[in-house]
Amino acid sequence: MKIAILGSGAMGSLFGAYLSQRNDVWLIDIDKQKVDRINSKGVTIIENDTRKLYRPKAVSDSAGLGKMDLIIVFVKSMHTIEALEQNRHLIGKNTYLITLQNGAGHESKLAKFTDKKNVLIGTTQHNSSITAEGDILHGGGGNTTIGVISGNSSRIRNIALNFTSCGIETEVSDDVKRQIWTKLFLNTSASSLTAILQVPLGFILENPHASFLMESLAREAVKTANTECSDYFDENDVINDIKTILKNAKGGYTSIYSDIKNGNYTEVDTISGYVLEVAEKNGIPVPYHQFVVSMIHALEDKAHASIIK
Amino acid sequence: MKIAILGSGAMGSLFGAYLSQRNDVWLIDIDKQKVDRINSKGVTIIENDTRKLYRPKAVSDSAGLGKMDLIIVFVKSMHTIEALEQNRHLIGKNTYLITLQNGAGHESKLAKFTDKKNVLIGTTQHNSSITAEGDILHGGGGNTTIGVISGNSSRIRNIALNFTSCGIETEVSDDVKRQIWTKLFLNTSASSLTAILQVPLGFILENPHASFLMESLAREAVKTANTECSDYFDENDVINDIKTILKNAKGGYTSIYSDIKNGNYTEVDTISGYVLEVAEKNGIPVPYHQFVVSMIHALEDKAHASIIK
Repeated sequence: MKIAILGSGAMGSLFGAYLSQRNDVWLIDIDKQKVDRINSKGVTIIENDTRKLYRPKAVSDSAGLGKMDLIIVFVKSMHTIEALEQNRHLIGKNTYLITLQNGAGHESKLAKFTDKKNVLIGTTQHNSSITAEGDILHGGGGNTTIGVISGNSSRIRNIALNFTSCGIETEVSDDVKRQIWTKLFLNTSASSLTAILQVPLGFILENPHASFLMESLAREAVKTANTECSDYFDENDVINDIKTILKNAKGGYTSIYSDIKNGNYTEVDTISGYVLEVAEKNGIPVPYHQFVVSMIHALEDKAHASIIK
Repeated sequence: MKIAILGSGAMGSLFGAYLSQRNDVWLIDIDKQKVDRINSKGVTIIENDTRKLYRPKAVSDSAGLGKMDLIIVFVKSMHTIEALEQNRHLIGKNTYLITLQNGAGHESKLAKFTDKKNVLIGTTQHNSSITAEGDILHGGGGNTTIGVISGNSSRIRNIALNFTSCGIETEVSDDVKRQIWTKLFLNTSASSLTAILQVPLGFILENPHASFLMESLAREAVKTANTECSDYFDENDVINDIKTILKNAKGGYTSIYSDIKNGNYTEVDTISGYVLEVAEKNGIPVPYHQFVVSMIHALEDKAHASIIK
């Protein structure tokens, strides 16, 4: 397959490297330095103690590459529209656009650039980060699930098979929204609080006040999810699952924690903001989410406010 | 009058110094260093550019001082019960106990130590802080209002006259709860946010997300106050008053901001926590207050959590 990946960050590079084993892969990134590095040195993936070099191609300007079979969107959510606009010429009648971005609600942006039947959504349990040397540290793996937003999902089975043959275990699901919600539950109720409190994940579990807030957010999110998903989520099951993850990742820090710490904009609008959006559409009161979204935006703005010394 | 002041912090020292001009004043504090300093060097009040020395007496153990006419409670709210227990022998049949502490709801603690008719509540617009040299910086003045919680308020007029004659303009009000709520509105809706966000007061006004949270908190607090006060507060009037204060004190930092910054416990339970308490008693939903109270407690605990490096 001819595959373009928009965004050569930690996740884009990880997928690009793996998929380049059996596909014609182009990493597309506006950052020329990153692009030059990938073309000259390749992408090194570190897993446990092993290092392996992959050779996907990279460009900062995709003019002349022709139509793709698949475009994977891995830019930060606030850059999705811009990235798709700049690479619009890669999208043909039969090009699938897929978002594997964190959070939810990205599909409506993709649907602005192609027919709904060619828009795919997905979620992955893989996580990775970029080392100081510019290599990709593959923190952990797991399943990747993809699905269609319109029509029959059997037609994308070959994409899942392709991914799996490259080492990214992928399945097609008719209820991928459910997987996306499951990941959202953790991020909207626990990760968001680690950003406001500036603490590792374990604090949310061990502190009774933080834990109360986490549970209140989770209950709001489950009520909201149940308006969108066919199978009902149970609030207590969801909370127990979150607690298990927090226990296992006690000392871990979230990306939204780092964003706030480093004065960057976060992806809150596609995480807690998405819950808020769906809740408002369905008349579900979610005051805790409203508080979290406003608080995170205020913390983002604080980094740029002239009143703060 | 024979007056004991529990707590020789910035406010206790300010009132002790002023009242010592025409009264027999005893500052009582468990901190022996503070007590020794007051007895050897007196209390210096700095106002604008003038310094004036006052000579109230101070003790760390009040045994043998005899019954007081008036005991003013100025300790931090979490130490009220302990301070009154240690100085129980100063309370006679005719001793008035008054709280001028920040926040609300302190009167129920005072009522554990004397008859309801001798419990007074009050609020003051004076503010002060302790300088690095241990002097009292009188930041600003204004009115002090006192009232009874039971019976006729005319009998405490002599206390107000006494205070006023010492330079603390004081009036007796039959609706002192209203003044207390007015001060609470600012603290529960704006000061609490400056602690979570770690920003000066002006940020709450100029940032749209912080401002939205402030207004939401203020609306909850007004709804709650209106269950307790005879004259109704208007939500928009209250919000406009808060905005005026924020504008005038743009660069100012709150004490709850400093408490969180320095890893100290805050007075949130007698501020936002009091609103929460009254709201719950009256069936008013106040999710934003619930969030704030839990968040501030979590931030307090963070300072002592072993999981935080």
